[in-house]
Amino acid sequence: MLISLSEAADFLSKCGDALIITHQSPDGDCIGAGFALKDMLEAMGKRGRVVCSDEFPKKFEFLTNVGCGEDFEPEAVIAVDIADAQLMGSLKEQYGERVQLCIDHHVSNTGYAERTLLNAEASAACEIIYELAREMGTELNEHMAACIYTGIATDTGCFKYSCTTVRAHIIAAEIMESFSINFALINRNMFDVKSIGRIKVESAVLELMESYFGGKFTMICITSDIMEKMGVESSELEGCASLPLQVEGVEVGVFLKESEPEAYKISMRSANDVNVSEICRILGGGGHAKAAGCMLRGSLSDVKRKLVEAVGKALGE
Amino acid sequence: MLISLSEAADFLSKCGDALIITHQSPDGDCIGAGFALKDMLEAMGKRGRVVCSDEFPKKFEFLTNVGCGEDFEPEAVIAVDIADAQLMGSLKEQYGERVQLCIDHHVSNTGYAERTLLNAEASAACEIIYELAREMGTELNEHMAACIYTGIATDTGCFKYSCTTVRAHIIAAEIMESFSINFALINRNMFDVKSIGRIKVESAVLELMESYFGGKFTMICITSDIMEKMGVESSELEGCASLPLQVEGVEVGVFLKESEPEAYKISMRSANDVNVSEICRILGGGGHAKAAGCMLRGSLSDVKRKLVEAVGKALGE
Repeated sequence: MLISLSEAADFLSKCGDALIITHQSPDGDCIGAGFALKDMLEAMGKRGRVVCSDEFPKKFEFLTNVGCGEDFEPEAVIAVDIADAQLMGSLKEQYGERVQLCIDHHVSNTGYAERTLLNAEASAACEIIYELAREMGTELNEHMAACIYTGIATDTGCFKYSCTTVRAHIIAAEIMESFSINFALINRNMFDVKSIGRIKVESAVLELMESYFGGKFTMICITSDIMEKMGVESSELEGCASLPLQVEGVEVGVFLKESEPEAYKISMRSANDVNVSEICRILGGGGHAKAAGCMLRGSLSDVKRKLVEAVGKALGE
Repeated sequence: MLISLSEAADFLSKCGDALIITHQSPDGDCIGAGFALKDMLEAMGKRGRVVCSDEFPKKFEFLTNVGCGEDFEPEAVIAVDIADAQLMGSLKEQYGERVQLCIDHHVSNTGYAERTLLNAEASAACEIIYELAREMGTELNEHMAACIYTGIATDTGCFKYSCTTVRAHIIAAEIMESFSINFALINRNMFDVKSIGRIKVESAVLELMESYFGGKFTMICITSDIMEKMGVESSELEGCASLPLQVEGVEVGVFLKESEPEAYKISMRSANDVNVSEICRILGGGGHAKAAGCMLRGSLSDVKRKLVEAVGKALGE
């Protein structure tokens, strides 16, 4: 059942001690939302405990170091930023069908919870938590301010992506006006730093960039031989699929990785208007308009020729 | 003479056709401020012409493609985002002592103009242009909105840096509410894309990263031999000085470049609290707390030893 902000506020004001579930592979938004909600419950004299199937990454320690809360038998189970019970990971079995309130901003929310406060217009779950705090008259503290700022900043790429809302900017302004959070340090840690290992992997990968059609199509091809030569495992290349889009003027980027002899996993990304899900569908795969993929078999040169042909056609080249 | 917002508005409402000077090596803020001011003058029925000693980079074409304005004998000369007449480049000789109004946000402004509207709290000159438009009751158009958004976004690193103000967020919110500018595309072009050549140079440079003191000190050393092997000129390495700070946990980063045999140009950057100007002063150089430099002579190994020793001392290692 979809509920309104005031109905969610009503639930929170009446519920008892609550378990707050964040999604697997936790990010800044679910961590920020979970810990800010815990603060809200505590401000009302209730206990809250934030749980996750995975460990919280060290870079969020400045939010999680208040502690996740003591172990207690929860009277309420709340999920934040979780569109689908599957995303609870190992916690799904125990709590997947016991969520009384889900607070989320994903349009794809499956409605698995008893009550869902959904605002698909919000750039982050933290935007909704902020509105909830206002609705309930909860006075923010510095930790909540940092939580909410971090959630909004991480989900919007620091106000960079098209999902950034007017409210995201207004909330950032209100938080910066009232609290002296070190937002520049938060942003540096969220966006500007990488492990030295990651920097070296990305550098090695970027050096392999190929360019076609006057730079409108870029491609990085990683064969097993190259992985062996670079000394990296396939798993270390996760997140590299968007690297070809770094080139100025590019429309379509492909990251090709050999998964077994003569079999290549293709990740295709679109910078602007080209629908790459359409290209991948023709090649036997699928996905979204801006991010899609497929598997291609054959010799590397044949596979590359096929890709250049298919992308070229979509680009009208 | 420092003047107030209303005095500047008064000047603009009374002045005739105006030349608008932007600084050399033009960036998003001076271009945005210059072209938004031209729009403002035109809304008052005056002519404006935006000039610069250097060409406007192609990536700002979406702002400059309205044209810089026809050639006319200006009745007023206005400088935007220029802290020092020197920064006019080749235009300094003709206009350096003829600026009637300077609109700037640099605390270091030398006061070279007849009147200076200075707001050193503003994150960008475009913030001040926006306030001026409000003060004068000028109705913004979509081009002005894009100009002002771009200036604020570029000078704040997309709301990332410590210079970001509450007003920067508020103005972004007001612009996004009233205009359908494609801010995500603007941000992609400003922050996320590079030329393929630049990507390859940075990748090659990053692969040379060395790390000391458990990663608190990182260093990239580029010798003439390496430059020759990479096939890059010294000038192509501009802007690489901050690359060592990309490593997580780093406090001090050094970019070392051989400028002549056994002579090395050292660029030192601080991520947080270490004062690198102090370290560089001891090594015979100087600069700012977060960005400083020096020249060191000797063999590469001696120079590196000296650097590791000096930085280690500052880090208490």
